[in-house]
Amino acid sequence: MRISCLSRQTGLPVATIKFYLREGLLPPGTPTGRNQADYDEGHLRRLRLIRALTNVGKLDLSTVRQLLASIEDDELSLASLYGVIHSFPDDAAPPKLNGLADATADVDKLIDDLGWSISPDAAGRDRLVQVVAALRQLGCDCGIQFFAPYATTAEQLVAAEMDLLRPESEGIDRAAAVVRAVLLEVALTAVHRLAREHYVTNRFGPADDEPPGAGSAPG
Amino acid sequence: MRISCLSRQTGLPVATIKFYLREGLLPPGTPTGRNQADYDEGHLRRLRLIRALTNVGKLDLSTVRQLLASIEDDELSLASLYGVIHSFPDDAAPPKLNGLADATADVDKLIDDLGWSISPDAAGRDRLVQVVAALRQLGCDCGIQFFAPYATTAEQLVAAEMDLLRPESEGIDRAAAVVRAVLLEVALTAVHRLAREHYVTNRFGPADDEPPGAGSAPG
Repeated sequence: MRISCLSRQTGLPVATIKFYLREGLLPPGTPTGRNQADYDEGHLRRLRLIRALTNVGKLDLSTVRQLLASIEDDELSLASLYGVIHSFPDDAAPPKLNGLADATADVDKLIDDLGWSISPDAAGRDRLVQVVAALRQLGCDCGIQFFAPYATTAEQLVAAEMDLLRPESEGIDRAAAVVRAVLLEVALTAVHRLAREHYVTNRFGPADDEPPGAGSAPG
Repeated sequence: MRISCLSRQTGLPVATIKFYLREGLLPPGTPTGRNQADYDEGHLRRLRLIRALTNVGKLDLSTVRQLLASIEDDELSLASLYGVIHSFPDDAAPPKLNGLADATADVDKLIDDLGWSISPDAAGRDRLVQVVAALRQLGCDCGIQFFAPYATTAEQLVAAEMDLLRPESEGIDRAAAVVRAVLLEVALTAVHRLAREHYVTNRFGPADDEPPGAGSAPG
């Protein structure tokens, strides 16, 4: 198919598709003339994958590029492929908070109690430590046990997610694995926010109808 | 206290604190001389709040500015204050995906079944619809029921979070409400990723020791 057809089928402007071609995110089509090329279903799938990761998953293009390369790198184990996702966003300069040692001990105890095998340099572990330390410093501690019920649910969610993967015997669909991991994170955050909206509305009353100051009685 | 003391106590460089002062994120201190001012515990708390929201919560400064203004705006109801958080990041141009109508019907049914009161323009609802539609289009559908067990846990998490708030009779600590909502999201994502790391390691084997291609047998 022509590039105009790719555009029609994905809703992406031709200029965006040409940009992805220039940037190497989309492999070139088969040349059919001086300024024309032929594209196939693989290009269509790739474009939809890029769009899902950027527009719905809110990842930037350099992250998407890294993910696409990791999907195609068959020497990368599945655990390492997920490891790439789990390290976003790159935490170049983690904050130096007081109380990190105590928070680390608490997080490690939680992980131990759950019986989870977690690598010592897992980004998620550091991030959880930072949250616990920051909340404490602000006098907003919620205690490490706050996370225990969620951890159990997270285990079930992940098991259900992995059951959706094509079996190893048929060759795991690595692109599907990545897009699910990225998009489910967006979805779970959305569900959590909806739960909060419902709870807060019920307990403290609804949101203001209009921005404060905008409304006033007529006359 | 002097600005150097603020810096020592927060670990933030003096230049960063001066930048927050210029930007109006930190209110000015009480002038004590030509180039000196006195700062108090309120400034210290505010700096720690800004640091938690930016460094741990990964929010950009314009978002933090909007949050700080919303915390201080007592005419803004608590539901609207949470509404500000729930709308991040601003979805200026949501993707035009196929199958949005079906996905919307599924998400609305989930919300109905849960008995949740959700405003029709809730950003979380739109985002969940986008994820469901995008996964379907990519052939990675997980079914709307996938989210039901998590929704129940999310309700419990939110109830526990709200129980940590100072009671209304004593005046709800709006800064604590905001910082908890923002940081708990980071923490829950981290726990979810740790659960995935554990599960994937157990089922598919550990991550590669070194980047592929980097290791080779000597000799």
